[in-house]
Amino acid sequence: MKDMKSQLNDIISDLLKDYDDDRNINRVDNFSQPDTDAIKRIITNLFKIVYPGYFREKDYKYYNQSSRLTVLIEDVSYNLNKQLVMALRQKSEYAETDFNELSEISARIVAEFLKKIPKVREYLATDVDAFYAGDPAAFNHNEIVLSYPGLYAVTVARLAHELYLLDVPLIPRIMTEHAHSLTGIDIHPGATIGRHFFIDHGTGIVIGETTVIGDNVKIYQGVTLGGLSTRGGQSLRGKRRHPTIEDNVTIYAGASILGGNTVIGAGSTIGSNAFITYSLKPGTKVSIKNMEMNIKNGETATESEDDSWYYMI
Amino acid sequence: MKDMKSQLNDIISDLLKDYDDDRNINRVDNFSQPDTDAIKRIITNLFKIVYPGYFREKDYKYYNQSSRLTVLIEDVSYNLNKQLVMALRQKSEYAETDFNELSEISARIVAEFLKKIPKVREYLATDVDAFYAGDPAAFNHNEIVLSYPGLYAVTVARLAHELYLLDVPLIPRIMTEHAHSLTGIDIHPGATIGRHFFIDHGTGIVIGETTVIGDNVKIYQGVTLGGLSTRGGQSLRGKRRHPTIEDNVTIYAGASILGGNTVIGAGSTIGSNAFITYSLKPGTKVSIKNMEMNIKNGETATESEDDSWYYMI
Amino acid sequence: MKDMKSQLNDIISDLLKDYDDDRNINRVDNFSQPDTDAIKRIITNLFKIVYPGYFREKDYKYYNQSSRLTVLIEDVSYNLNKQLVMALRQKSEYAETDFNELSEISARIVAEFLKKIPKVREYLATDVDAFYAGDPAAFNHNEIVLSYPGLYAVTVARLAHELYLLDVPLIPRIMTEHAHSLTGIDIHPGATIGRHFFIDHGTGIVIGETTVIGDNVKIYQGVTLGGLSTRGGQSLRGKRRHPTIEDNVTIYAGASILGGNTVIGAGSTIGSNAFITYSLKPGTKVSIKNMEMNIKNGETATESEDDSWYYMI
Repeated sequence: MKDMKSQLNDIISDLLKDYDDDRNINRVDNFSQPDTDAIKRIITNLFKIVYPGYFREKDYKYYNQSSRLTVLIEDVSYNLNKQLVMALRQKSEYAETDFNELSEISARIVAEFLKKIPKVREYLATDVDAFYAGDPAAFNHNEIVLSYPGLYAVTVARLAHELYLLDVPLIPRIMTEHAHSLTGIDIHPGATIGRHFFIDHGTGIVIGETTVIGDNVKIYQGVTLGGLSTRGGQSLRGKRRHPTIEDNVTIYAGASILGGNTVIGAGSTIGSNAFITYSLKPGTKVSIKNMEMNIKNGETATESEDDSWYYMI
Repeated sequence: MKDMKSQLNDIISDLLKDYDDDRNINRVDNFSQPDTDAIKRIITNLFKIVYPGYFREKDYKYYNQSSRLTVLIEDVSYNLNKQLVMALRQKSEYAETDFNELSEISARIVAEFLKKIPKVREYLATDVDAFYAGDPAAFNHNEIVLSYPGLYAVTVARLAHELYLLDVPLIPRIMTEHAHSLTGIDIHPGATIGRHFFIDHGTGIVIGETTVIGDNVKIYQGVTLGGLSTRGGQSLRGKRRHPTIEDNVTIYAGASILGGNTVIGAGSTIGSNAFITYSLKPGTKVSIKNMEMNIKNGETATESEDDSWYYMI
Repeated sequence: MKDMKSQLNDIISDLLKDYDDDRNINRVDNFSQPDTDAIKRIITNLFKIVYPGYFREKDYKYYNQSSRLTVLIEDVSYNLNKQLVMALRQKSEYAETDFNELSEISARIVAEFLKKIPKVREYLATDVDAFYAGDPAAFNHNEIVLSYPGLYAVTVARLAHELYLLDVPLIPRIMTEHAHSLTGIDIHPGATIGRHFFIDHGTGIVIGETTVIGDNVKIYQGVTLGGLSTRGGQSLRGKRRHPTIEDNVTIYAGASILGGNTVIGAGSTIGSNAFITYSLKPGTKVSIKNMEMNIKNGETATESEDDSWYYMI
C-alpha cells in the first residue's frame, strides 16, 4: 500500500481536476454565495427585535432598551446588506451591476424590510393570542414565545415573506428552510398568511409557495396545503399551484388541500386525513367516511399473515 | 432617499414606540424569561450524567469518574436553579415571593429532581433493551445511545416529566420542544410512559399531555396519541384529553389513537393508519380494511386527468 | 432540610454506586465511543469538499483552491481516522486488535472512502439537476445546494453509504441520523440510491436499510419505503426487508411501499397515500380509490358529535 501521504495527494489532485469541469455543483472561482450561517445569525437577531425581552444577548448585557435595539438593528442591517449583495447578484438583471450600485440597492431593500417589522409584530401578536386560546396545554403567552415550534415557523415565514415581496432571491428560502429544519414545518416564503394563525404540533406541515390563507385559520400536524403533480416542473414557475383558505377555517391533522383552483370557503372545517382537490362553499364540514376496520378479539385474534400485511414499520 | 443612518434611526424610534404598548409579545421591562440556550446546555449535561462515557466534555478531560460527575451535578444544579427562579415567578402563587425565598424553593426542587435520576436511568436502560430487541438494523446498544432519535426524545421526556411532576412551569416544555426540534418526535412532558418503551424512526409522532402508556409498548413513525377537536380551548386545561395505552401494545406507523376516554387494552396490535377513537378490549388486533386501489397497467395506463387528481406534492 | 451541599453529595454518591453495576447504559471505564460532535464537524467539512465554493470556512480565508482543499482533506482524514478506531473496536473481530494495527486499518478505510468522493459528486450533480427540473419553486441550482433539505439528506446518505459499504459500524448511522435530525428525512446508510434522485419537502420520509432505488426516482414528503412487522427483531438482521424501486418511478406524498419482496416496476407512478405491499409491473399507475367524504353544507352543517369524532389534534 502506498503511504498515506501520497494517497492523500492523489485524492487531492483528483478532486482538483474534478473541480475544473463545469459541473453544476462547482462554484470554485467565486466565493459569492450567501452565507447560510450568517443568515441564521440574522434570524436570531430578528427574534430579539421582534420579541423584546425573551432571548438573551450572548456578549453584552444591556439595561437600556434603546441602545440594545440600536445595536441589533445595526447588526441586522450590516449583515443582511452583505448577504443581499450576493443574492441579488444571482438575478440576471443584476449580473453585471457595479458592486457599489448593488450595495446601494441592497441598502434600500434592507431599510424597506426593517420598516415592515412593526407590522409583522402586530400580526405575530395576534398569532400568540390564537395559540393561547386554541391550546389547553399552553401555560401562558411566554411559554408559546419561548418554546412553540409553530410560532417559530410562522415568525420566520412572516419575516421571510417581506423579503420575498421585495423580490429578494435565495435568502427568504434559506430562512424558511432553517425554520423547517428546526420545526418540521415547511412554509414557503411566498405563502400569504392572515392574522390569528394557529399551528399546533406542526411536524409534517407543508404550505406551498402560492398558498393564500385568511384570518383565524387553524392547522394541525401533517396538513399539506399543496400542489398536484409535478409533470410541469419549471414550466409551472410563478403560476398559481396551491389553494386559497378563507377566514375562520380549521384543518385537522393529516388533511391535504391541493391545487391552485381550490378555494376552501370561510368558516369551513376539514376533518383529519381528508383529501380535498376541489373548492368548498363557506361553512362546509368535511370528514372522511367512517374508516372500515378489521377488528379481531380473543380467538379470532391469532397471529396470521392476514394481520401482518398492514404492520408498516 | 434619506441616508441610511437617518432611516435606521426612524426605524429604531418606531420600534421603541411599538415596544411601549402592552402587546402580548413585549417583555421589555423585565429580563425574567428562562434562557432557552441555558436549558439546552442543561440537557446536554444531563445526558452526560444519564449516559456516562458516551458524550464528551468540551473543556476538560477527566480520568476520575467522581470528580467528573461532581462538576456535572454542580453545574446542572447551579444553572437549573437560576432558570427555575425565572420560571416559578410566572406562577401566580409566586408572583410576589421574595427572591431569596424563591431561590430556596428552587433549590429544593432541583434536589428533588436530581434524586430521581437513578430511577430515570433504570427506565432508560429498559428502553435501550427494547430498542435493540425491536430493530434488526441496530448494530449494538452503543449505536442506539449515540444515534437513535427515539431514545433521545424519550430520555428528554422522562427527565422533563420529573420536573413536570414537581409542578415546574415552562422549563419541562422548553426541554421536550428542544427534543421535538431535533427528532420530529413531540412528547408532551405531562405524558406518563412505562418501561421498555420503543420508538422507531419517530418523525411525526405526537404524544399528548394526558397520555398514559404502560410497559413494553412499541410505536412507529407518524403515530398520534392525541385529542379530538379543539373547541374547548383553555377550558379543557387539566382535563383528560388523551388515551391510555395498556401494557404490550404495538402501534404501527401512521396510526392515530384519540380521546381521553379511549383505552387500548393490553396486548393489542394497531395496524398502520388505523384511526381509533374508542376503547379496545385486551388482545385486540386492528387493521384498516384492504384499501381499494385503482391499478392500471399497459394501455390503460395512459396519462389523464383522472390519474393526476391523486398526485399530491 | 439538609443543606444543599450535603444533598448534592448524597446524589453524587448514589449515582456513582449506580454507575458501578453493569447496566447497558454505563460506559464508565472506557472513553471509547465515537464522538458525535466530531462526526458532525466531519460532515460539515465533507460538504465543503463536495460542494466547493458554497460553504465558508470559519477560521481561515483561502484564495488558493488547492491549499484550501488540502487543509480540508487532511482534517477529514485525521479526524475520521480517530473516530474509525473507536467504531471498529466495537466489531467483535477487532475487539482485541492492537491499537497501531487498528489505526492502520482505519487509515486504509479513510483513503478508500476519500477516493469515492468524485463518484459521489458525480451522482450528486445529477441529483441537483433532478431537483431543479422537478420543482417550479426552485430559483436556481445554488438555492438547492444552499437550502434544500432533500439534497442535504441525500448528500449525507450517499457519503455514509460509502462508509457502510466499507463495513464501518456506527459512524454511517450517526451521520444519517444527524441528517434526519436536520431534515426529518430518515435514510438508512444501507440504502442503495441511483442517479437523478429527487426528494421534495421531505419531512417524514423513511427509507429502510435494504431498500434499492434505481435512476430518476422522485419521492415526496411522508413516503415510507419500509418493512412489514417487527416480530422477528434481531433475527431479521441482514435479511432483505425493504422494497426495490426501479428506474423512473414517481411516488407521491404519503404513499407507503413495503416489504423485501416488493418490486415497483420501472416507470410506475404511485399516487398519494397508496399502501403497497406487493410487486407492480413496469408502467403501472396506482391511486387509491376516490376517498369517500361526508360533506355537509348550510343547515346540515350544525355542530354535532358526529362531526367531531374525526377532528384529530
